[in-house]
Amino acid sequence: MKIAIQGELGSFSHQAALNMAPHPIIVPCQRSAQVFTQLEQNKVNAIIVPIENTLAGSVAEHYDLLLNHDVSIIKEFNLRIVHTLITNAKAKMKDIRKIYSHPIALDQCRKFLKKFPRIQIIPYYDTAGAVRHIIQEELRDCAAIASELAAKTYGGQIIKHSIEDNKKNYTRFFLLKKKHTVTRNTNKVSLGFALKNKPGALFKALSVFALRDINLCKIESRPVPGKPWEYIFFIDLLHKNDAALKQALQQLAEVTEFFKILGFYTAAKH
Amino acid sequence: MKIAIQGELGSFSHQAALNMAPHPIIVPCQRSAQVFTQLEQNKVNAIIVPIENTLAGSVAEHYDLLLNHDVSIIKEFNLRIVHTLITNAKAKMKDIRKIYSHPIALDQCRKFLKKFPRIQIIPYYDTAGAVRHIIQEELRDCAAIASELAAKTYGGQIIKHSIEDNKKNYTRFFLLKKKHTVTRNTNKVSLGFALKNKPGALFKALSVFALRDINLCKIESRPVPGKPWEYIFFIDLLHKNDAALKQALQQLAEVTEFFKILGFYTAAKH
Repeated sequence: MKIAIQGELGSFSHQAALNMAPHPIIVPCQRSAQVFTQLEQNKVNAIIVPIENTLAGSVAEHYDLLLNHDVSIIKEFNLRIVHTLITNAKAKMKDIRKIYSHPIALDQCRKFLKKFPRIQIIPYYDTAGAVRHIIQEELRDCAAIASELAAKTYGGQIIKHSIEDNKKNYTRFFLLKKKHTVTRNTNKVSLGFALKNKPGALFKALSVFALRDINLCKIESRPVPGKPWEYIFFIDLLHKNDAALKQALQQLAEVTEFFKILGFYTAAKH
Repeated sequence: MKIAIQGELGSFSHQAALNMAPHPIIVPCQRSAQVFTQLEQNKVNAIIVPIENTLAGSVAEHYDLLLNHDVSIIKEFNLRIVHTLITNAKAKMKDIRKIYSHPIALDQCRKFLKKFPRIQIIPYYDTAGAVRHIIQEELRDCAAIASELAAKTYGGQIIKHSIEDNKKNYTRFFLLKKKHTVTRNTNKVSLGFALKNKPGALFKALSVFALRDINLCKIESRPVPGKPWEYIFFIDLLHKNDAALKQALQQLAEVTEFFKILGFYTAAKH
């Protein structure tokens, strides 16, 4: 299966792809918008994108792209984020003068980095890209923070395992396809909707689900471009009963300006 | 009044400060966390921070900082964002080879930039910082996208006014002080809260306000560090009746793990 991701080979999206699909052929893309276009133009079979991290929060850009592209969520997966410190072969910790990584990864290893006040911290556009850079350029006094997969992909040496401050660090990924395959026996659904501009409108929209014991597990809001102080809401719902969900969605149409089903899927285990 | 902001002199935060306080003395800070610390350590009288933009969305980091620092919202202000193209004196559009600005500003002028496909676009950490850079280094073939105030601050020449794609571009700013001054006759309140981990908990929390005709105008969620898939919710409410609000807040305590009032203030005009 050909799968497009944002970022380089060896990135956490690549790691997620190995967990979500059998033997994926990865198509790396520079920008997230390109990833969605690859799928819409049938250049790949699926795409995998991060939607939220349990420390950094939601990936707002991906919510906007989900709404504006003809794609469906097929699967979700929560990847445990383990950061490792990677160097060229035979380098030792005492040789390291500079550490490269994506700003979010650097931020998630702050306690570890504080132990080495003399090492210069350099933000880089991508975690795996940082590994490729120090390996290909043979920068012997440099290290990069990235996944174990990045070390394997570029032939780097891992000198420190699991250097993230908080071990409860997960990123939730979506596998998206073009086809709207409504799978039965799923228990989770994601929606985006805009409200009619009336007081209490959000409360009414959420009541549609609450009154049927359909559990709201996430809510996110994004601005509507060109309509200041109006928002698109994104919700994830856990449900047990297909009929109740169907009725709730019918009622939702009455209280929203529009809504879009982003996908029916099975909730990840943890 | 001494006011700390994130970013350089001439930034949109500086512009907001001129609108929100009489004759402010601006203390520029590199990072947002430093801005909040300046206030907590009484080094400034107030701080001004952007909280959301009508195109780019919420500034997530500032929600986290509001929750974790002993500060109160005193005032809100919606600044119309007008981007201008700034050069060294006497430069002409045909001389320009490079344009510098913050990635969000570049993104908001995409249609304008498309007219000049041969000009190289260079992301910079700050809009006003980009102006200072091209003026101080006398880069005659370079321009920067920033506010009119940035041009004035660094002696730049504005060669194009109002180059933003969408004119409905506003950034909402908060003026924050350390003192918890509960002002009567305000009509807006911002809160942060965590829910008890039970189905329907968010619905119950919102019902506290909906049942009293207190209007929810914004909801935002942020992850709870160390508690995967749990969230802190941030809401803004418009209310007309102090007694009803007081009762609602009493009831909110029953359905939340904790809540924090971020400030009582008067809603901005537009």
